[in-house]
Amino acid sequence: MDDNSEHGGVHVDVDIEILDDPLRSEMVRGAITHFRKRDTDSLLERRVNPVQKKIPVLIHNGKSVCESLIIVEYIDEVWKDRCPLLLADPYQRAKAKFWADFIDKMVYPPSDKVWAANGEEEEGGKKAFIDGIKLLEGELKSNPYFGGETLGFLDIAFLPLYYWFHTFETFGKFSIEAECPKLVAWGERSSCTPLYHTHIRSMTWR
Amino acid sequence: MDDNSEHGGVHVDVDIEILDDPLRSEMVRGAITHFRKRDTDSLLERRVNPVQKKIPVLIHNGKSVCESLIIVEYIDEVWKDRCPLLLADPYQRAKAKFWADFIDKMVYPPSDKVWAANGEEEEGGKKAFIDGIKLLEGELKSNPYFGGETLGFLDIAFLPLYYWFHTFETFGKFSIEAECPKLVAWGERSSCTPLYHTHIRSMTWR
Repeated sequence: MDDNSEHGGVHVDVDIEILDDPLRSEMVRGAITHFRKRDTDSLLERRVNPVQKKIPVLIHNGKSVCESLIIVEYIDEVWKDRCPLLLADPYQRAKAKFWADFIDKMVYPPSDKVWAANGEEEEGGKKAFIDGIKLLEGELKSNPYFGGETLGFLDIAFLPLYYWFHTFETFGKFSIEAECPKLVAWGERSSCTPLYHTHIRSMTWR
Repeated sequence: MDDNSEHGGVHVDVDIEILDDPLRSEMVRGAITHFRKRDTDSLLERRVNPVQKKIPVLIHNGKSVCESLIIVEYIDEVWKDRCPLLLADPYQRAKAKFWADFIDKMVYPPSDKVWAANGEEEEGGKKAFIDGIKLLEGELKSNPYFGGETLGFLDIAFLPLYYWFHTFETFGKFSIEAECPKLVAWGERSSCTPLYHTHIRSMTWR
């Protein structure tokens, strides 16, 4: 997006770009209309995230919003009437944010060890990863989505990790479905939601 | 707090406890009424934060809210009419959350090295810490508080770190005031706000 806002949206009067972190960005995209992927380095040079110089970045009306989960909250707040992602109840909101934070701090780090480490470190990572996703499966309860009847904030926070499940199983030589069958069913279900399905198939992975 | 909610509030009908992380908790306390500090281990055993088993934890109407910044957002949402901590504008909200996240990820980690490391590691930590707080000072602009005219979400997120400034200066042998005079003035100003001043003086540090 140029510094002078371009209003290219079809359904809402915004100009928006989300850079990389493709699955999470694509999930968010369901709430918005105008998406273009440009050369990341060039955009970073053009001050979209001068502090951390990392992606994803969402640009809306010429202003940068950074950090994946902050972007999702922003989308929820700006387009609540179109696509609410967090419930209205403060406690339910806090719970969704807590589990999203849990994924970032307690599940992503050990998941790296499942495919990138060996020996004891890999085994420790595998155990911590499985422990973490089991807690998340418990939080799902008998709901189709973490958001309840519809896909919401925590689903969006978790789905990028689900996309790696096959990689973890291949490198870690274990079955996530055997450990967390409800969670695998959730991932398959979520991947078939219109919000996900419409957009992810056209994504080019970097 | 017991599992059966006790309604001991004076001004609002809630029962609340915030455990440790004393400065941040005390800042939050300005918005609420009923505060008791109990034995942490006992509370943790009693399921206030069975997932992470760490503090702070806020208990409101028998339900646990965990993670410092999530607690502050919860307080803002529940008692917005009494003590709004985030602005209504989604972009301003996203900015405050971004900088709070920046403090957690980019300023706290190097700050540990200022007082706990030696040699090159300490020097690297000192440089990263100063770079980080300079960016924050820039974000303060000419406002009295990060929240603008009143103390808000980002002030609350940053003040616990300000409380360590003297320690960093002592161990790191440098002057934060020489590097960031506006930031030190902000810290002194914020420490004199009623929200802070009323409560922090009665705090017992662990």
